[in-house]
Amino acid sequence: MSSEQAAAAVVESAKKLAAYAAVDQHFPHDAKVVGIGSGSTVVYVVERIVQKKLAGEISPGVTYVPTGFQSKELIIEGGLNLGAVDRYPVIDIAFDGADEVDAELNAIKGGGACLFQEKLVAASAKKFIVVADYRKNSTTLGTQWLQGVPVEVVPLAHAKVKQDLIALGAKTAVLRLGGKAKAGPVITDNSNVIIDAHFGPIEDPLTLASAIKLLVGVVDVGLFIRMADASYFGNADGSITAKIRDGDKILVH
Amino acid sequence: MSSEQAAAAVVESAKKLAAYAAVDQHFPHDAKVVGIGSGSTVVYVVERIVQKKLAGEISPGVTYVPTGFQSKELIIEGGLNLGAVDRYPVIDIAFDGADEVDAELNAIKGGGACLFQEKLVAASAKKFIVVADYRKNSTTLGTQWLQGVPVEVVPLAHAKVKQDLIALGAKTAVLRLGGKAKAGPVITDNSNVIIDAHFGPIEDPLTLASAIKLLVGVVDVGLFIRMADASYFGNADGSITAKIRDGDKILVH
Amino acid sequence: MSSEQAAAAVVESAKKLAAYAAVDQHFPHDAKVVGIGSGSTVVYVVERIVQKKLAGEISPGVTYVPTGFQSKELIIEGGLNLGAVDRYPVIDIAFDGADEVDAELNAIKGGGACLFQEKLVAASAKKFIVVADYRKNSTTLGTQWLQGVPVEVVPLAHAKVKQDLIALGAKTAVLRLGGKAKAGPVITDNSNVIIDAHFGPIEDPLTLASAIKLLVGVVDVGLFIRMADASYFGNADGSITAKIRDGDKILVH
Amino acid sequence: MSSEQAAAAVVESAKKLAAYAAVDQHFPHDAKVVGIGSGSTVVYVVERIVQKKLAGEISPGVTYVPTGFQSKELIIEGGLNLGAVDRYPVIDIAFDGADEVDAELNAIKGGGACLFQEKLVAASAKKFIVVADYRKNSTTLGTQWLQGVPVEVVPLAHAKVKQDLIALGAKTAVLRLGGKAKAGPVITDNSNVIIDAHFGPIEDPLTLASAIKLLVGVVDVGLFIRMADASYFGNADGSITAKIRDGDKILVH
Repeated sequence: MSSEQAAAAVVESAKKLAAYAAVDQHFPHDAKVVGIGSGSTVVYVVERIVQKKLAGEISPGVTYVPTGFQSKELIIEGGLNLGAVDRYPVIDIAFDGADEVDAELNAIKGGGACLFQEKLVAASAKKFIVVADYRKNSTTLGTQWLQGVPVEVVPLAHAKVKQDLIALGAKTAVLRLGGKAKAGPVITDNSNVIIDAHFGPIEDPLTLASAIKLLVGVVDVGLFIRMADASYFGNADGSITAKIRDGDKILVH
Repeated sequence: MSSEQAAAAVVESAKKLAAYAAVDQHFPHDAKVVGIGSGSTVVYVVERIVQKKLAGEISPGVTYVPTGFQSKELIIEGGLNLGAVDRYPVIDIAFDGADEVDAELNAIKGGGACLFQEKLVAASAKKFIVVADYRKNSTTLGTQWLQGVPVEVVPLAHAKVKQDLIALGAKTAVLRLGGKAKAGPVITDNSNVIIDAHFGPIEDPLTLASAIKLLVGVVDVGLFIRMADASYFGNADGSITAKIRDGDKILVH
Repeated sequence: MSSEQAAAAVVESAKKLAAYAAVDQHFPHDAKVVGIGSGSTVVYVVERIVQKKLAGEISPGVTYVPTGFQSKELIIEGGLNLGAVDRYPVIDIAFDGADEVDAELNAIKGGGACLFQEKLVAASAKKFIVVADYRKNSTTLGTQWLQGVPVEVVPLAHAKVKQDLIALGAKTAVLRLGGKAKAGPVITDNSNVIIDAHFGPIEDPLTLASAIKLLVGVVDVGLFIRMADASYFGNADGSITAKIRDGDKILVH
Repeated sequence: MSSEQAAAAVVESAKKLAAYAAVDQHFPHDAKVVGIGSGSTVVYVVERIVQKKLAGEISPGVTYVPTGFQSKELIIEGGLNLGAVDRYPVIDIAFDGADEVDAELNAIKGGGACLFQEKLVAASAKKFIVVADYRKNSTTLGTQWLQGVPVEVVPLAHAKVKQDLIALGAKTAVLRLGGKAKAGPVITDNSNVIIDAHFGPIEDPLTLASAIKLLVGVVDVGLFIRMADASYFGNADGSITAKIRDGDKILVH
């Protein structure tokens, strides 16, 4: 094993530890509906849930609601009950990844263009737990994730919303293209497009998120403000960091 | 002609007067891009524009941007240049109907499920003029139009948004069905659904409109607040009423 | 009870008899996945399935796949397990209504604009059973259902497909409008539009169905040819008529 | 300039020659509506059209209909009149690229997931001309383009259509994923998904194309059979090859 492979294995092991801790410490014993997101760390969330279900610690009757294609596959492969978010406006707890998480547990999400369903699940959840690797652990949004804030936009409105995002302070606002797989713009699962808006470091994410959502043409924005209750990060040295909301404070372990 | 037919003819004539006045008093002599909405009074707006174009008073080079299917037909039938809203984020003036207009020129729109494109055109317009018949002329929104405020919603979110609208004070929030033409819910031109939320008289439409737009799952809401610069109504007695914004005041003629 | 009400009650009772017979004679004892369609007779199909499930004659583990909004509601209200058609490419049996059924068990469907999902479920089913009232019982398609054959079309192609349908012999081909609930065209659950094409009596429905489906822009057509294995009709006199495929013949009871 | 750069410059120059020849030999002097496709050679088609328009050889009143996002940009940047395909069911001539063209002028298209609008434009065109580089010049479809035949499919039907494609002889049938830009499947501009089906060398493309299009769930297939009237290829040595339909024969220059 090369030293690079060894380092990757350490991170992988830390991600697993982070995911297991998130499930062990937060999965409600009486959960009926649970949201499952996506990302490389969430794979271990599902692994842990399946283990605890087989061990009789999680009821086989729990329904799992995915945030998109990858999570749907994870749920089915794990042999868990698949539910659809349109039938479950109330979810007991949701686990999801993030592209960046700040000191106040605010997050940027949407690198994979699935921010809408992710936000719907998170907003429907009584508790929302982020799991990710250390590269997503940040102090101020916009300092680690440099690709811009993903904004989901009705296609007809893309030219106007670009202008409006610049007026709100974006340095750049770019229609996301589909690359080799899809000529022209990425189309989301809701038949919309994505504009990536780069604002630099975001000092007041709550105000920015509201201002963007209020724009005509914006379906939702990949800023998840005051939604997460805790986040668990797998570190490069194999350890994990947890940030946990406790009233108005965020405790860091 | 029966007395009912005579009364209808008087209203029709008043709608035409209202539409002609709107065009004559507001169409900018240097307009390049003009928004055209829908409704029975807007038909006369297009009629007037065509007259003035033929008379050489409106340039043949003006591009007209529709708010939906009916307006697209009107533009094509009128022999006007058709443009698409995604290419024109700035519109010089837009004319559209409304379902109800209050004393402050706030409006409810979306009875025909096309509120999104209507709002996009209105928001892109430097000047926005409402034309309608007297039944739409109101003091407080929610007192004349009793079908509820139309809210365009991503389909996956309909159950949650219904709950959220009730929490915001809606007495009822109903998924709009397609009737005989379409089993199940109406699908909008943007692949979304419509929830009609009945709030009773709306005392503070600005606050309500923002609260609804901020909900996860809401694409837009049929409350057009502080958008109209003037509205012209054809009355039952053949006269017209104009409400015109003048700084902070609304002048009524 | 007026004589009209009495006649309606007789038909209703016959529809129930037809639905019950369809379930009793065809529901496979080892069914795992069952398709449920829509229409007023299908309501009794679900009623019968629920009865038999409660009586222990149908396994509680069966998954039910809906063909649209109404059937989804029926499945949920009946306390049955809801599945989604995209996960079940093989269905043991499906029950659905129809707008017209000819002597060969060919059917016209799509009056409610849901023909695509209905056809997908029917095509995925090993056995497909139609239940309906006597007005749908016909000899030749196009003689009872006079609204035209519904064709689901990608919106961009509607003008071309209209031309092509006329070239295929349609007397009229009309873009279906949304009526009071939706200005402009009906949009289907798949973001397409519907063209109703009136061909008069259809002597060779198989050839016509293929010719329409092969048109560029056509997603599917509401002609269900050689798909049904049996159809049960509730008659006006309280009796039921069954047409059952037996090799190359259709037996009528 | 390295020898690789030199070779690339030779190919680029050949593509330009091919595009210019296609325009010079086929653009009708009385054209009213012209389709513009996408691909690196089509860029030179538009360049040539703009040259001839400026030289007064092509009327400034011609309307250009794009097959997708890239062609729309090309038309706008070229200062040409943009039209929408839904208003022009009849197009005088269309120029487009291809992923592979066989000896009979049949083509595979859809590598960029825009096959539907490309086929709609081609099918609406009285004359359809392919322009491409030498790598697309083939004898039998499926021997040069190894990524599979792109099939546009309604999302609900993807599992069933995959099965059906295998039954039709596909060695593999894979849901196309969005890669880094979009987690989960590519969504097309018509809200559908793409399945890439690899059939190996396709001896009878007409029969295969019909069989695929007839499948429930298939919107269209990236096999363009008997549609092209000519194709022009830029060769690696700077020359061009033209294949031109002449009655039942294909002449090669």
